[in-house]
Amino acid sequence: MSVLYIAPGTCAQAAHTLVRELELPVAIERVPLRTPDSPIHRVNPLGRVPALQLDDGTLITENSAILPYLADLKPQSGLFAPAGSAERAQIQSWIGYLAFEVHAGCLRPIFRPDRYSADESTHAGIRAQAIEQLHQALAHVDRHLQGRQWLVAERYTIADLYLGMFVGWLPRLGSERFADLQHLARAQQAFQARPATRQALDFEAAR
Amino acid sequence: MSVLYIAPGTCAQAAHTLVRELELPVAIERVPLRTPDSPIHRVNPLGRVPALQLDDGTLITENSAILPYLADLKPQSGLFAPAGSAERAQIQSWIGYLAFEVHAGCLRPIFRPDRYSADESTHAGIRAQAIEQLHQALAHVDRHLQGRQWLVAERYTIADLYLGMFVGWLPRLGSERFADLQHLARAQQAFQARPATRQALDFEAAR
Repeated sequence: MSVLYIAPGTCAQAAHTLVRELELPVAIERVPLRTPDSPIHRVNPLGRVPALQLDDGTLITENSAILPYLADLKPQSGLFAPAGSAERAQIQSWIGYLAFEVHAGCLRPIFRPDRYSADESTHAGIRAQAIEQLHQALAHVDRHLQGRQWLVAERYTIADLYLGMFVGWLPRLGSERFADLQHLARAQQAFQARPATRQALDFEAAR
Repeated sequence: MSVLYIAPGTCAQAAHTLVRELELPVAIERVPLRTPDSPIHRVNPLGRVPALQLDDGTLITENSAILPYLADLKPQSGLFAPAGSAERAQIQSWIGYLAFEVHAGCLRPIFRPDRYSADESTHAGIRAQAIEQLHQALAHVDRHLQGRQWLVAERYTIADLYLGMFVGWLPRLGSERFADLQHLARAQQAFQARPATRQALDFEAAR
């Protein structure tokens, strides 16, 4: 059986939610991070999650690879689209944008300013600037959702799932800066209302 | 005809190189960046490249989406792998890692420290720290390439193309820090030796 390694509060929530959404026979294993004796180091030399280990030992990392791979296991779900289709490219495009721009570009400097500067006196400034850039990055998504329910086509896809997770993190930032992004709030509510989302969150919250 | 918008010196080089590698009927249009009257603003509201506009006007952005989409147009090339295969997931995984960790995580703070802090006195420190993190991020790839020619399977894929582009940028950093990554140097030489790589670079260098 394949195993998906996760840690609560990380972006592994996206892959975890998708496993439950598709009701896939994938074991979910919660691991601690940044501790040298965590079992994750035997699986992923980078010590990070999400990490999907297939039956044969093959390791797949990055949501931009795991979400498409899992969705392709159940093409009839409609959560992705056929290879070669423009819809599939658009879904992968939004996932790429969210990973590159929203997560790596903005959320990482907000949560981990120490990655950018060892000088602690710079951290408040780095965080404040990244919050402004996150607002810009998400406002682009919000404008796209004006007059539409979903990011691509007329259905919920893995791009909406991935977006819903990030929007669900905004309250952690303790900033009112994002209150104007009403279309995003609606997208997040749709994500939050799905039973699979609830199941994944409950599992991650349990001790 | 589809149009790929590029700008020399940017990561649009990857998508551009792939168009030439696959000999696809895609027009290559060079555009200026960060000028308000650039034609890119009519195509991509973010004003960025690579941007692939399909015949019907559909816009695809992000190399992590454009490279798979283009490669799927010629599956017989072997540059990607069939939907649902573990090989495909591994190729997408490396592309995701390079986009997230190498490009957004390290190259962006090196080239654009102003995105992280408005305080110019912090820029040298941000750059120096990002160069160290880039070395760590690439050392992971270098270790993976020990004893193997390509990132995935026994053939050149879009993951190797994408990696080759980034390694080819290292001399721009003016740092000797990367001289120890010999497997990466070999991967970059293999990328550089391909006629399509040469054609794309020559096109981008011409005025």
